[in-house]
Amino acid sequence: MVDNNGVAPGMSPVIPGWFSEFSPMWPGEAHSLKVDKILFQGKSDYQEVLVFQSATYGKVLVLDGVIQLTERDECAYQEMITHLPLCSIENPKKVLVIGGGDGGVLREVSRHSSVEQIDICEIDAMVVDVSKRFFPNVAVGYEDSRVNLHIGDGVEFLKAVPQVTYDAVIVDSSDPIGPAEELFKKPFFELVAKALRPGGVVCTQAESLWLHLNIIEEIVSNCRQIFKGSVNYAWTSVPTYPSGVIGFMLCSTEGPVVDFQHPVTRVDVIGNNNKVKGTLKFYNAEIHSAAFCLPSFAERVLRPKLT
Amino acid sequence: MVDNNGVAPGMSPVIPGWFSEFSPMWPGEAHSLKVDKILFQGKSDYQEVLVFQSATYGKVLVLDGVIQLTERDECAYQEMITHLPLCSIENPKKVLVIGGGDGGVLREVSRHSSVEQIDICEIDAMVVDVSKRFFPNVAVGYEDSRVNLHIGDGVEFLKAVPQVTYDAVIVDSSDPIGPAEELFKKPFFELVAKALRPGGVVCTQAESLWLHLNIIEEIVSNCRQIFKGSVNYAWTSVPTYPSGVIGFMLCSTEGPVVDFQHPVTRVDVIGNNNKVKGTLKFYNAEIHSAAFCLPSFAERVLRPKLT
Repeated sequence: MVDNNGVAPGMSPVIPGWFSEFSPMWPGEAHSLKVDKILFQGKSDYQEVLVFQSATYGKVLVLDGVIQLTERDECAYQEMITHLPLCSIENPKKVLVIGGGDGGVLREVSRHSSVEQIDICEIDAMVVDVSKRFFPNVAVGYEDSRVNLHIGDGVEFLKAVPQVTYDAVIVDSSDPIGPAEELFKKPFFELVAKALRPGGVVCTQAESLWLHLNIIEEIVSNCRQIFKGSVNYAWTSVPTYPSGVIGFMLCSTEGPVVDFQHPVTRVDVIGNNNKVKGTLKFYNAEIHSAAFCLPSFAERVLRPKLT
Repeated sequence: MVDNNGVAPGMSPVIPGWFSEFSPMWPGEAHSLKVDKILFQGKSDYQEVLVFQSATYGKVLVLDGVIQLTERDECAYQEMITHLPLCSIENPKKVLVIGGGDGGVLREVSRHSSVEQIDICEIDAMVVDVSKRFFPNVAVGYEDSRVNLHIGDGVEFLKAVPQVTYDAVIVDSSDPIGPAEELFKKPFFELVAKALRPGGVVCTQAESLWLHLNIIEEIVSNCRQIFKGSVNYAWTSVPTYPSGVIGFMLCSTEGPVVDFQHPVTRVDVIGNNNKVKGTLKFYNAEIHSAAFCLPSFAERVLRPKLT
């Protein structure tokens, strides 16, 4: 399969043997990874899907030309987007994942021994299939018997969910350009709020402070109107994401107060916590709290809107 | 001036109109910036010097093919490498900067009203000249009357410094491949320790946790042997540095105890601190403390060696 420039989709037309990530979301810059071997390329109903073996970042999953995960640094994203919300509430039992078809968030949710039910709604079956085939250490999340996979649109799924169903919702989406566009808008957040119990929490992928402060400001404003509990913003380092960071929007519904910056379940570095099983690579209680400390340029814009 | 491939030094031979940063320090990956105009290229006695106007990161300074600063994100590096050490001690008076020829660290040091003397030893006069010509908002640091510029080798400079001279030393170096190689070795740290007063502090650029944990481990071990006070490690986000982060080694000499994670001078987001003048873009007291929280993979390796 070749695109208009005569090269494979997602492959840089300009550096032979390298994948380069260009996007109107980050004009004027591009991160490139050396490709040892292309393992898969296909076009689903929703997007271009590419998997390659990189020279130094392990296997890489790319959707519509944008890196979704590499084996070398996926731990930071998956652990933070999962444990930031789940360690902020006592004994989460029912968790919904929107997106996250690769299974990495499922892997992290399933570490929580209190969890009884994990629903996931991913729009693109090809992402699930490709992850199971090429990323066994990520897709391992699907092997947990508590997981129920639904292939479909996240907004439609939420419309059918009875009110007050979930303790936590995790929105592991791609960027707001493409199939995930609706997941950054107010109607979606309203559906999430209805699906949560009082004092339930949502964590959603929320872009880069360096690149998209204006988008983040709008997401925060939308969330502030809809979520009557806490609204906070955290960020962390993921080397293969644009600008090297990714943020998370964390909100709770009206009910028992949630103090996102101070986790009620504390995971230490050694990993001997009976509520969260296994040894984490990136997340710990200290880095949880630190993630809410913002650089001054962002603090000045966002803090007045946070609760 | 062209190199062997017939292109300007530091310019990508493979993406016309883009600068791409390749290095054996980060094999298999490269960050690229779109070039609007090349403003300067030259070869000093020590390195290749390139300045270009980028499409989206402002002007960019490149030494030996490696990005040193961009106007868009230099605030994070300059503010953190300066205020992490200077806010950790009471009323620093005499400060030495090794490297840092662009003047950005000087700009930050000069915000501290307690400081009476700022010495800087930069090996490469061309870096100073180029910064004054193309980066007035960075080189502004040289305009402070407390600044004394010495062009020369940092190791030789330190050998001539009387013992117990400085309250703080800031080592703003490039990577350990090239002219800065000696600044990562034990003899250099011994000279720094001698130049500091009891309970004096040093902060040195110390690479990326994601890319160079083994180098960092060795730096920590060396420092632990030489600095008999505190030894700690902090990190922060700088989008145009490899892997999107940069770390700082912070050490104090035997004497009054320094608790690096808890600054004695607290700079808030509004910037109304009479000890640190002006409004900072990135640094504040919360992000100071947060910078010492390490991901678990690094915490397990480094924490046993830190004090």
